[in-house]
Amino acid sequence: MAEPLRVALAGLGTVGAGVVRLLDANAELIARRAGRRIEIVAVSARDRARDRGIDLARFRWTDDSAALARDDGVDVVAELVGGADGPALTLARATLGAGKSLVTANKAMLAHHGLELAGLAEAQGVALKFEAAVAGGVPVVKGLREGAAANAIARVYGVLNGTCNYILSTMESTGREFADVLAEAQALGYAEADPAFDIDGVDAAHKLAILASLAFGSRPAFGDVAVDGIRHVLAADIAEAAALGHRVRLVGVAEADGPRHEPRLFQRVHAHLVPVDHPLAHVTGALNAVVVEGDFVGRLLFQGAGAGAGPTASAVVADLIDVARGEFGPPYAMPAASLAAMPPADAGERRGRAYLRFAVADRVGVLAEIAAAMRDAGVSIESLIQRGPSSDLGADGAVLIAIVTHEGPERCVAAALERLRGSPSLVGRPLWMPILG
Amino acid sequence: MAEPLRVALAGLGTVGAGVVRLLDANAELIARRAGRRIEIVAVSARDRARDRGIDLARFRWTDDSAALARDDGVDVVAELVGGADGPALTLARATLGAGKSLVTANKAMLAHHGLELAGLAEAQGVALKFEAAVAGGVPVVKGLREGAAANAIARVYGVLNGTCNYILSTMESTGREFADVLAEAQALGYAEADPAFDIDGVDAAHKLAILASLAFGSRPAFGDVAVDGIRHVLAADIAEAAALGHRVRLVGVAEADGPRHEPRLFQRVHAHLVPVDHPLAHVTGALNAVVVEGDFVGRLLFQGAGAGAGPTASAVVADLIDVARGEFGPPYAMPAASLAAMPPADAGERRGRAYLRFAVADRVGVLAEIAAAMRDAGVSIESLIQRGPSSDLGADGAVLIAIVTHEGPERCVAAALERLRGSPSLVGRPLWMPILG
Repeated sequence: MAEPLRVALAGLGTVGAGVVRLLDANAELIARRAGRRIEIVAVSARDRARDRGIDLARFRWTDDSAALARDDGVDVVAELVGGADGPALTLARATLGAGKSLVTANKAMLAHHGLELAGLAEAQGVALKFEAAVAGGVPVVKGLREGAAANAIARVYGVLNGTCNYILSTMESTGREFADVLAEAQALGYAEADPAFDIDGVDAAHKLAILASLAFGSRPAFGDVAVDGIRHVLAADIAEAAALGHRVRLVGVAEADGPRHEPRLFQRVHAHLVPVDHPLAHVTGALNAVVVEGDFVGRLLFQGAGAGAGPTASAVVADLIDVARGEFGPPYAMPAASLAAMPPADAGERRGRAYLRFAVADRVGVLAEIAAAMRDAGVSIESLIQRGPSSDLGADGAVLIAIVTHEGPERCVAAALERLRGSPSLVGRPLWMPILG
Repeated sequence: MAEPLRVALAGLGTVGAGVVRLLDANAELIARRAGRRIEIVAVSARDRARDRGIDLARFRWTDDSAALARDDGVDVVAELVGGADGPALTLARATLGAGKSLVTANKAMLAHHGLELAGLAEAQGVALKFEAAVAGGVPVVKGLREGAAANAIARVYGVLNGTCNYILSTMESTGREFADVLAEAQALGYAEADPAFDIDGVDAAHKLAILASLAFGSRPAFGDVAVDGIRHVLAADIAEAAALGHRVRLVGVAEADGPRHEPRLFQRVHAHLVPVDHPLAHVTGALNAVVVEGDFVGRLLFQGAGAGAGPTASAVVADLIDVARGEFGPPYAMPAASLAAMPPADAGERRGRAYLRFAVADRVGVLAEIAAAMRDAGVSIESLIQRGPSSDLGADGAVLIAIVTHEGPERCVAAALERLRGSPSLVGRPLWMPILG
């Protein structure tokens, strides 16, 4: 058997400790599958004293993670520090620059600096691997980069944030409101003390930008992702969606739009109505799922745990096994220098059905005002429901009006909402959700 | 860019023609992703004259597929002939023996000769790849071999035969009987003229044996798969299952059983009751889906089209891309010589709930006879339903008795059925289906 692969681990939080545990538990099995042993030789973290329930005395310790990149006894660095910039980026650059392979779970860093890091890895002939950065333990990076590699991809989309999905599916099963479920999720440790990255869609957008690059051979373009989260989804919206045969999910969608000779890239993270017979409707709790639509393979679904120590460690170690086997190539399948700068698509030209919800004052003429705005903007209404007054809509006596539009361009819906902006009839901002087609 | 990868295609049926079309349609994209062009240079098939709607004049033609293995202008042979033995096996041995890589969609050949062929490939340092052999376009071979490689796998199971799933889900949605739906599927080309391989579970068993090897590092042991098909499932069974909150699916299950230091391999293909909230319950039509349960990653689901020209070609070309990239290792992840000969598990020791259906003569004492057999064999009954006489049970005036057992060892259920064997009260053989836990 070949020499062991010598790994340095930067970051010993939940995932880092999970990697140590996994490599301890399955060492023999992994050596058989990888053709050589995979051994942690050095670690780095902020707090050496913290009890993580694992024996760290057998590893070289450094407080300075960048020192791992200079360590001659290290073949590959696993970066589990996190953060788009700062120590993680410094370590990543130093590791690849020193001709060592890098395995990372850091979606924010990849969404912002993936192109640079991939170029660096390719120049050095080393690996840059990031299965754990998208959908936790689900091997969807490999699924796109390799499994679906024969296909022109039309669309890649999925449930990419477990915290949001846990909140939405708990709202669905209990009828409780967002803030209530979020508070509980925080108490249980399912949501961060500062949940903004998750619930405002930023985390999902990082992952989507990575998936889009892999799918379309385009440069990571996080800045072009239209991002919205789930703060404004009411229990009433979920109930209306259910009455319409749909569930509410935060879905990230990346799609090649426009003419084939001059494609544009559409990227959006937004709460969607998903038909109950669609696989994403059955993604519950903290699960993640990604759908890949290819021109020959059709629709592929990858589903599993999107976070947590075990699943994420599984993805990190899968990458280490690929490195140990020498089975790696350009991080985004094609050379970084050849990734296209795809211009962003105009969302207004997209056609689809949509769900619109208004909380309005219960008085004469409000329905006519909304209906007129729809008509004047060219939005065709498929169904409309007005419910009696409810205290859940943010103002006493407000009533809910839920509309499903016929298929049409999004710009018309945007124009209708613009016409209604500032109307004294409205209580709070209307909620718009695309219906997944 | 490196030299093109020169491919010889043996077999120009639906899948072979699909591979030609795919490589034509996506040539540039594939070259970018693979780092080199992938070019078909030679083909072989039984009938040169047949119109396949593709231009074959540009390829060297041979009537003798084994000649492809000797062709110095060929780097890799794609074997799409089919059949466990015969020309496919001759070609596979000759190709690997000549130091060329082999890509195949041939599950029967792999289930029977996979160990020998893997050893041959490893000895020559070439690739033996077979993504298309299991679940068509779904990259589950890669998902197991690489994506889940860090995990000890507890169980791998799934819906592995699209024909059976099409029949069962059509029975479910229409209430029609098996023979009727099968005849329609044959007329539509969804089922073979001789459907035995599909409907009796043999095709699913071939695929299961391959998955089990990858999951457990064991030698392919097709002969140890307990196989049963779907011929005996009645529309009434599907209706009873639905009333119990379940759907009927033909599921292949492979599981490591027994003590960890001396594991045994359980492999079975059988119609199961699947709870409606389980992902496999939502696998409809000709879809395939595979669940992998790992000790760190938890439950992974891979789903997509299990057959058809496009999806299968997608998997074949994905393998060719891996070969072009040089990203391949031992076919079963670990060296063939190290694959363990895992002894088969004793199904009788397995514990679970089960569905039992009897068609019985409508007369005094039948129910007591069945209940006594259950009691005497130690089977605990969770629920029992007796329906009025129906003409669908194979005899005039027969009535249906459906039983769900509490969890218990399978040998008890087998003993109860043995006690009832030959009873003049029974019309036809009882149907037993495990309930997926």
